[in-house]
Amino acid sequence: MSIAIVYFSATGTTKSLAEAIAKGAGPEAVLLPITGKQIVEGRFTDEALLAQLTAADAILFGTPTFMGGPAGQFKTFADATGGIWYHQSWAGKIAGGFTTSGSFSGDKQGTLQYLVTLSQQHGMIWVGQNSPNGLYSGKPLDVALNRLGSYTGVMGQAAPGQPLTAGDLATGEAYGARIAALAKKLK
Amino acid sequence: MSIAIVYFSATGTTKSLAEAIAKGAGPEAVLLPITGKQIVEGRFTDEALLAQLTAADAILFGTPTFMGGPAGQFKTFADATGGIWYHQSWAGKIAGGFTTSGSFSGDKQGTLQYLVTLSQQHGMIWVGQNSPNGLYSGKPLDVALNRLGSYTGVMGQAAPGQPLTAGDLATGEAYGARIAALAKKLK
Amino acid sequence: MSIAIVYFSATGTTKSLAEAIAKGAGPEAVLLPITGKQIVEGRFTDEALLAQLTAADAILFGTPTFMGGPAGQFKTFADATGGIWYHQSWAGKIAGGFTTSGSFSGDKQGTLQYLVTLSQQHGMIWVGQNSPNGLYSGKPLDVALNRLGSYTGVMGQAAPGQPLTAGDLATGEAYGARIAALAKKLK
Amino acid sequence: MSIAIVYFSATGTTKSLAEAIAKGAGPEAVLLPITGKQIVEGRFTDEALLAQLTAADAILFGTPTFMGGPAGQFKTFADATGGIWYHQSWAGKIAGGFTTSGSFSGDKQGTLQYLVTLSQQHGMIWVGQNSPNGLYSGKPLDVALNRLGSYTGVMGQAAPGQPLTAGDLATGEAYGARIAALAKKLK
Repeated sequence: MSIAIVYFSATGTTKSLAEAIAKGAGPEAVLLPITGKQIVEGRFTDEALLAQLTAADAILFGTPTFMGGPAGQFKTFADATGGIWYHQSWAGKIAGGFTTSGSFSGDKQGTLQYLVTLSQQHGMIWVGQNSPNGLYSGKPLDVALNRLGSYTGVMGQAAPGQPLTAGDLATGEAYGARIAALAKKLK
Repeated sequence: MSIAIVYFSATGTTKSLAEAIAKGAGPEAVLLPITGKQIVEGRFTDEALLAQLTAADAILFGTPTFMGGPAGQFKTFADATGGIWYHQSWAGKIAGGFTTSGSFSGDKQGTLQYLVTLSQQHGMIWVGQNSPNGLYSGKPLDVALNRLGSYTGVMGQAAPGQPLTAGDLATGEAYGARIAALAKKLK
Repeated sequence: MSIAIVYFSATGTTKSLAEAIAKGAGPEAVLLPITGKQIVEGRFTDEALLAQLTAADAILFGTPTFMGGPAGQFKTFADATGGIWYHQSWAGKIAGGFTTSGSFSGDKQGTLQYLVTLSQQHGMIWVGQNSPNGLYSGKPLDVALNRLGSYTGVMGQAAPGQPLTAGDLATGEAYGARIAALAKKLK
Repeated sequence: MSIAIVYFSATGTTKSLAEAIAKGAGPEAVLLPITGKQIVEGRFTDEALLAQLTAADAILFGTPTFMGGPAGQFKTFADATGGIWYHQSWAGKIAGGFTTSGSFSGDKQGTLQYLVTLSQQHGMIWVGQNSPNGLYSGKPLDVALNRLGSYTGVMGQAAPGQPLTAGDLATGEAYGARIAALAKKLK
């Protein structure tokens, strides 16, 4: 069983959330960063990365929320999966996602909605995060899981130059564990 | 294993799609209609129906798209699941959805997005429809599966007073079969 | 010139935001609450309220976010505008919206997206809120305008039993002023 | 008064819709294509194009729907407007949008929702398309305006290698005229 975590990170914030999820998912998790070097004149060209995803049992998509949606670099990657879509090579795999931004809301829900749509075009099975709402946890917000009240996937929030809270990272770690358990069950 | 199909239908169109999905899902499927009688001063009151859903292994949500979203009757039902949400009693169940409207697009995608969000608040696992795009099937559009190009769930389209196409209904039937197979696997 | 603010409020939180917006919009603003009494067997029946909206120059839509979308009571109201939609009687009017929930994100963006869709089916012109992101304001978050980072409309957040922050209410007031200025210009 | 139409087109379909809108908008319309050449390692670099948009009274955004969202090239352009967002230089301008895909639905609504979100982050005023639903027009679907039932913006649909219908193009032309009239009024 293998869990691929494919993500774009501009400043390291989304990367830190990807790493927390990988930690929770365990040794089967592989981190696959999207970088500008893979993009030539607006097209994603790294066929080897796409092949790694096709070989995985579960794929988690991660991206910052830029200007109200997934980063252009991530979307460029998503567009390169058109041939995989045509053959439905990812159908039946588990999918999930995560995003970060500077604001509490910051239109991050729209990014998660997009990641769902991408997964559904591929015939995948979407698994969101289910740590209960942090407001009811009785814990201080900086260590509470799911302090932002996000369900479709994991959201992380940090002002520019700041790290994610311990609680946001722990939410990611719990999410990774959920994905790994389900991937094992569906295998 | 049991599959609950909870839906609202005003004119019978959504009901016909619910029945097609039930046919595909097999004898374990149960049709649970939402009606105006269950709604008192804007609140859904049928606790027995909610208990039936809690007992099911998979729940499919169905509603027409009215004014760009789920019917008010359906949304009123969804609001009544707040207590179930608080206890996360539906977490881990399979979820899916379907919608109908008079137009080809008709903002039906927004309704499916809402059904996903509802399922994710409940910690459920979303399974969309994966019949390939009907445009590439080589079949006449009225019998082609997925002629509308919908993935997150099943869309049906019919002008007022007309039935759904044979293809839309067959898309529903194939979707029911997919849900049943996955529910069995995850049980 | 007149500005109608039509909203549903269950606990008073959304009402407090509606009142702040009305204050900002000035004496031309009228508050029109949706209540359970107007809903009979799941259908909204208050034709007089609909006529008041048709007479207005701008309509602002407000609802709590319940289970990831507009409250069932609000959606039931929206469905009752189908006849107005058919005749496009609201085309060209200014539209806007606001929502509240207990969490920072809480899927409130999906509710605002729905309010946009409703307005667009009616051919209306959508005006969002444009107080800049509160994270860059240098003010404490409880008094900062737009502390949640919402643009499509105004979001308010308060834990159960708590009032909205002074900043959330001030964001509403600034939004009301923006709507009033544009409604005057377009008149 | 000037109307900028900024769009990405891979095969010419979205370009044909952009041209129809420009025709409807009249001599004040300027077509500004996004191309892969403007994108270096995943970042949009054409500052002159951004300056042209800042000088316009209205901006229309156009993109195909690829894998359920705006094309990566378009999203990369959108991300390059972050500095403009910070200074809210586009606040108060009119915005609108259009998208094309091969399917009737094809998740095009999600793309239009994204274009709305982008415009709202910029404090712009969203104007959708308001040609009435083509199903009620009594005309054959290939010449009917708004045959797809789209309101938030204009949708065009064409199978691979086929042109848009005369009706889809005429819907674009009517939309251009609506935008031009409102831009004149708000100037």
